[in-house]
Amino acid sequence: MVKARQWILANKPTDLPRISGDQPTFKLTETDLPDPKDDEVLVKPVYISNDPAQRGWISPEAHPDRLYVAPAKEGEPMPARALAEVVETKSGSFKKGDWVFSQCGWTEYAVVPAKSLQPVPELEGGLSKTLYLGALGGTGLTAYFGLMDVGKITKDDIIVISGAAGATGSMCVQIAKKLVGCKKVIGIAGTDEKCKWVESLGADQCLNYKSSSFKEDLAAATPGPEGFANVYFDNVGGEILDFMFTRMARHGRIVACGAIANYNTMSDRATGLKNWFEVIQMRIQIRGFIVIDFLPRANEAREAFKKMLQEGKLKVEGGEHVVKGSFEDVPKTWLKLFEGGNQGKLVTEVA
Amino acid sequence: MVKARQWILANKPTDLPRISGDQPTFKLTETDLPDPKDDEVLVKPVYISNDPAQRGWISPEAHPDRLYVAPAKEGEPMPARALAEVVETKSGSFKKGDWVFSQCGWTEYAVVPAKSLQPVPELEGGLSKTLYLGALGGTGLTAYFGLMDVGKITKDDIIVISGAAGATGSMCVQIAKKLVGCKKVIGIAGTDEKCKWVESLGADQCLNYKSSSFKEDLAAATPGPEGFANVYFDNVGGEILDFMFTRMARHGRIVACGAIANYNTMSDRATGLKNWFEVIQMRIQIRGFIVIDFLPRANEAREAFKKMLQEGKLKVEGGEHVVKGSFEDVPKTWLKLFEGGNQGKLVTEVA
Repeated sequence: MVKARQWILANKPTDLPRISGDQPTFKLTETDLPDPKDDEVLVKPVYISNDPAQRGWISPEAHPDRLYVAPAKEGEPMPARALAEVVETKSGSFKKGDWVFSQCGWTEYAVVPAKSLQPVPELEGGLSKTLYLGALGGTGLTAYFGLMDVGKITKDDIIVISGAAGATGSMCVQIAKKLVGCKKVIGIAGTDEKCKWVESLGADQCLNYKSSSFKEDLAAATPGPEGFANVYFDNVGGEILDFMFTRMARHGRIVACGAIANYNTMSDRATGLKNWFEVIQMRIQIRGFIVIDFLPRANEAREAFKKMLQEGKLKVEGGEHVVKGSFEDVPKTWLKLFEGGNQGKLVTEVA
Repeated sequence: MVKARQWILANKPTDLPRISGDQPTFKLTETDLPDPKDDEVLVKPVYISNDPAQRGWISPEAHPDRLYVAPAKEGEPMPARALAEVVETKSGSFKKGDWVFSQCGWTEYAVVPAKSLQPVPELEGGLSKTLYLGALGGTGLTAYFGLMDVGKITKDDIIVISGAAGATGSMCVQIAKKLVGCKKVIGIAGTDEKCKWVESLGADQCLNYKSSSFKEDLAAATPGPEGFANVYFDNVGGEILDFMFTRMARHGRIVACGAIANYNTMSDRATGLKNWFEVIQMRIQIRGFIVIDFLPRANEAREAFKKMLQEGKLKVEGGEHVVKGSFEDVPKTWLKLFEGGNQGKLVTEVA
């Protein structure tokens, strides 16, 4: 029997999740785990993936008929994806010391069915296995299928990518510029330093949305009518999306991937989109998109990334932001996502 | 030489256009028209088409890089489509007394190039030629291509149509139910009387958006998850569109055809769309759409309508709202569109 501390979802948040004070979102508890039974495995999550999407899973507005996963439940551990080590096993599929991919959530240990786990293969070239949580995992697949299948980008396209210094956005920039060779790739990020990094990944230009001249800058980067954006890969929603409606080319495509600008607010208080008539007059196409619809084709993306890595077209250095800390700090690290505190994929390493 | 009174665009409106008072939108003037030169025709518009889209053409926000037609100019006659009679002709293509389709605008007479005119053929079965302005004209084509090509409706679809008692919406209802045979057709209109009429056109149900229980009614008409709408044909934008985001089925399609709810306000004061995350989580597809992109295929729709008429599947009685009045009343009649004052296509007959 193993004792495990867990971060429990205590109160579904209506605004920014909070760790302390009144109605804290999370609560640290300790529980006795049962011994693994046949075909079960005891795992220890070591690298925890921090994803903006988790905020949606714990929203009081999340509804099983609408969300693409079962909404999180109060009283249960905060759901999260992680790379975990096998500690004890009653399954022939895994041996002690194996690295596995698990949806075990914010817990020190978990007893899970072996069939819920996926093996984590070694990466060539001395690359860190944590890349399976980001560039080479779900995040990379999101960028790949969002651009190739949903956005249908071609080398003739001018493309704008918001959240460009984030996990998905930084992959988008590289796929658009280095794999497809888009005519112009414009990133949007939240600090000048991040913008520089995005440009180092291949963006022709990256604009700081916190600059007072941001809208003028974005308009200047997409001068009409020849320079309007053909594709907008949207990770943020809100005010930037609303402004982008006015910068899209006729028959332009918007890939609606994320809306972090409004994740910490109930929908009735969200920033409303006001430039809707642009969607009509410019005949814009918009597609909402969740990567799970494309998982059966994951290998296609993985092969593309392998080739990009071999050809030096995919830069993973600087694309991971690993925060090493104690289990107590897990929620605090996750909250960095909503402060713009990370560059690339934010990973928690539980010390 | 002919004298012609004209309704001139005097001031581009930032809210509801007004005929009198301060900064009136329109001004009645009189002008001397030159005699027609070679290949020109003098026409008298008799049946004027009243279209919500005209409001967009006169917006101060209309920009030549964005709008699908040249924005209207202050000092020039209000642009409008009309059926006109040929009064005098210097063209071999038309003779005196011919009926023609013209974009001549709000004027008593106009001298126009013959090549800008289209002939108006006689309709079989004693049907009024004014149908060429509505059901059998651009309005009907809008409904047809919006549903068939943009919305790609099938008989398995549950479809919601806003503005269902309007010119486009009333055609949509009939095409969805009588031509395609959609599983369920739900209309939205602004009075109980209109709703009854929409149901008489074939809608399974029509909801009054002015009812205090409207949102509950619409939710009950689209019960999740099996009864969510597969297609939403949107003529209105604004609050109804925002609510419809929450009633769409996974992978549902929205045909963004109109946004009359916000036509009389500058975009910064428009009703903002707040339920955007639904677009992502339900993987909704949205396509903005203007009928001009489909005009080369107009005959396809006209053939379909002819067959529907022959088979008794297209009801045009009650689908026209003809207001007979003097030329002075032209703007007042057009403004009925924004008061919900019309059922079906609103046509002005200049007495």
